[in-house]
Amino acid sequence: MISSLTITDVEVTDVRVPTSDNLMGSDPFHKKPDYSAVVIRLHTNSTVQGHSLVFNIGAGNDWVAYGVRDLAVLVVGQQLDTFVQSPAALHQLMVEHHQMRWLADGVFRMAAGGLINALWDLWAQAEGKPMWALLADLTPEQVVACVDWRYLRDVLTPEQALDILHRGRNGIEARRERLQQHGPVAYSTSGWLGLSDAQIEVDIKAMQDRGFQHFKTKVGGNLDDDIKRLTFLRGVIGDEACLMTDANQIWGVDEAIEWMLQLSAFKPFWIEEPTARDDVLGFIKIRQALKSQGIGVAAGEQVPSPVIFKQMLASGALTHCQIDAIRMGGVNDVIAVILVAAKYDIPVCPHGGGIGLCNMIRHYAIWDQLAVSCKREGRFVEYLNFLQDDVFEAPVTVSQGCYDTPVEPGWGLAMKPSFIEQHTFPDGAVWVDRPGPVGAAFTA
Amino acid sequence: MISSLTITDVEVTDVRVPTSDNLMGSDPFHKKPDYSAVVIRLHTNSTVQGHSLVFNIGAGNDWVAYGVRDLAVLVVGQQLDTFVQSPAALHQLMVEHHQMRWLADGVFRMAAGGLINALWDLWAQAEGKPMWALLADLTPEQVVACVDWRYLRDVLTPEQALDILHRGRNGIEARRERLQQHGPVAYSTSGWLGLSDAQIEVDIKAMQDRGFQHFKTKVGGNLDDDIKRLTFLRGVIGDEACLMTDANQIWGVDEAIEWMLQLSAFKPFWIEEPTARDDVLGFIKIRQALKSQGIGVAAGEQVPSPVIFKQMLASGALTHCQIDAIRMGGVNDVIAVILVAAKYDIPVCPHGGGIGLCNMIRHYAIWDQLAVSCKREGRFVEYLNFLQDDVFEAPVTVSQGCYDTPVEPGWGLAMKPSFIEQHTFPDGAVWVDRPGPVGAAFTA
Repeated sequence: MISSLTITDVEVTDVRVPTSDNLMGSDPFHKKPDYSAVVIRLHTNSTVQGHSLVFNIGAGNDWVAYGVRDLAVLVVGQQLDTFVQSPAALHQLMVEHHQMRWLADGVFRMAAGGLINALWDLWAQAEGKPMWALLADLTPEQVVACVDWRYLRDVLTPEQALDILHRGRNGIEARRERLQQHGPVAYSTSGWLGLSDAQIEVDIKAMQDRGFQHFKTKVGGNLDDDIKRLTFLRGVIGDEACLMTDANQIWGVDEAIEWMLQLSAFKPFWIEEPTARDDVLGFIKIRQALKSQGIGVAAGEQVPSPVIFKQMLASGALTHCQIDAIRMGGVNDVIAVILVAAKYDIPVCPHGGGIGLCNMIRHYAIWDQLAVSCKREGRFVEYLNFLQDDVFEAPVTVSQGCYDTPVEPGWGLAMKPSFIEQHTFPDGAVWVDRPGPVGAAFTA
Repeated sequence: MISSLTITDVEVTDVRVPTSDNLMGSDPFHKKPDYSAVVIRLHTNSTVQGHSLVFNIGAGNDWVAYGVRDLAVLVVGQQLDTFVQSPAALHQLMVEHHQMRWLADGVFRMAAGGLINALWDLWAQAEGKPMWALLADLTPEQVVACVDWRYLRDVLTPEQALDILHRGRNGIEARRERLQQHGPVAYSTSGWLGLSDAQIEVDIKAMQDRGFQHFKTKVGGNLDDDIKRLTFLRGVIGDEACLMTDANQIWGVDEAIEWMLQLSAFKPFWIEEPTARDDVLGFIKIRQALKSQGIGVAAGEQVPSPVIFKQMLASGALTHCQIDAIRMGGVNDVIAVILVAAKYDIPVCPHGGGIGLCNMIRHYAIWDQLAVSCKREGRFVEYLNFLQDDVFEAPVTVSQGCYDTPVEPGWGLAMKPSFIEQHTFPDGAVWVDRPGPVGAAFTA
């Protein structure tokens, strides 16, 4: 079947949800996000489609959509078989394009990643496998061939990566069975800065009823408020439950250290994004300062390139590697980062949330626990309990505090047509009666 | 006059030159650049305009143009006076916009920088001052207030920056007089990888006749070719002339070290962009390995954020700081980097080339040498002898190997209307008869 599939069209839709109405997703820096997605659908000469998306938080979603539409010319007319033979070739053609690479990371790498991920989905759809299984069924040689090693081999050589993956074949069937019973352990992000204590308590109780024992909250707005919020949260979840904190880059380096030392009594499991996404030396300094307090350091949702991840992992700046599904150049880049994390034995704890991120990251977590790090302990995957049932044909599910290991082919990103229609920006029903799109996009 | 100026419209034009026809600008990674610019013109309620541009190398110029047009809503209707009162406010509104900052650096920061630079030009036009003089006439307090210190103060505090700028007032009038006689020392980038030795020799001889003693060449395609090229170049310029090398990120970290050790006999003054633009730890390793050979390490044209620059400068990874005029968030970001460089006594040697970059960077170099580092020695500013006379109303000029210090107000970026008309992409006369824009844009 793969050998006959040709991509005939790339459909790109700007979809946004006015989450800022109820401050879901709010943090000190991102005060009023409107969770958004560039929805990418590859049409083919058969009924099989490839789906992916690029998550954004409102304004700017159209920038990525513009980029995806432009890069689509590199994909239309391609045979899936060509991609399958060398997933690295398309990745390189885009990410290292001799004129486009001037655009650097951010919008460019995200747009390229959206298309690359759609090709991977098409492949998995054609094979009838969920993404984690497609990855796990590749040979170690095939996996290593997906990666651009140019800037990575000073910390991890392709040969070392092969060793890691060959070791990962040992006992893989037993791990596969266990993961099919209970997928990766999930944690819940509950303490959005814009929500009241009462709202958060309701949310946490509901998550506890579903088996959750790990919770994350936003910090960094105001130290007194943080102390109150953490006191309250410890009261709700108890002293032993795992409590992560997330500053979303609000602090400078020294400020991050001082602030977290004042919160250390609440035993935060990690501080996520204590400072700028690209401050490798800053993260190293923060990690060193917080080590004796037992506070870990995590980042990833905005780490813009495998090169920054490489430095963060090899230097020990990160204690937890929060790979994200849409920030970089697709599956190829994420494979690289998961392999580097395995070499340095840093747990992969993917970044979820948004629209569709949880759908995607569960596959990476399963692949890592099944075939790369081969470890389950100490690995927690972010889970958000909204924008699922109304959005996706096959919503993400959790059981007893763990992700359910998906069985549907691909990422599981196919959206309900009615959701797309209503939320298309700016002409969908949800948006058409609101303040003008330009004004809404740039609310200060 | 300033108090009455209001921005009424932002005109954005996608301008491209088919430089790939003769391989000007070619290097191992960027094989066929088409030098391009997003041309930004602020119209006002008077005849005064504000001009800037964002340089690109072909495909993707439209991505940045799209972004500038989108962000323009934040500028139209603004009074210049509001910007003058707080240049930081607009910079922050764009670069740290609570929804847009998710787009990270690259396209987003470049688009924001294009608009911010146009505001600065409008200010300078209204004052009737060249940009360097506008900057030099600001009080130290005004300069420091332009900068976003959130992620920088762990290496440079606002108070330390004030000290640097206050010291810079000593002897400023004498330096101003000297710089008005001879602007910053220029160097010539001559050894484009796609050009023949004969072509390069003609070019170098012409530059020597104009007083140039510093030359840069591209390396990294093939070691044997590099040895031949450097042997040839040393033959043309002599053993004593300053010869820089530039790899445009073609190498991994260890490869960069091995390769440059094999070229050390040719006494390269610096190796520019030996590896990935964001590999701080990689640059540190390279610098340490090449130190004993007397080979410096330079970068900047693709350093994507002040945070990466901060790390590169404070760690000693860079021996020369190649600030660029369009990569980051405009004047405000560049001020920050020049101040950090001054603290660590790292010479500012701006990145030129492209369309209009030389027009802009001379102002930064003059301001640095006049009012910040206050040093001329060891500071070299890139100069390219093409895309000037046919392009700009007031082209950049050099005398005796030095930039002439400009006297015209603003950046000096006003383009000849005929140039813009002919080179507008894809409908200008230069492009309309060529292969389709999409095909041309994505030539592999």
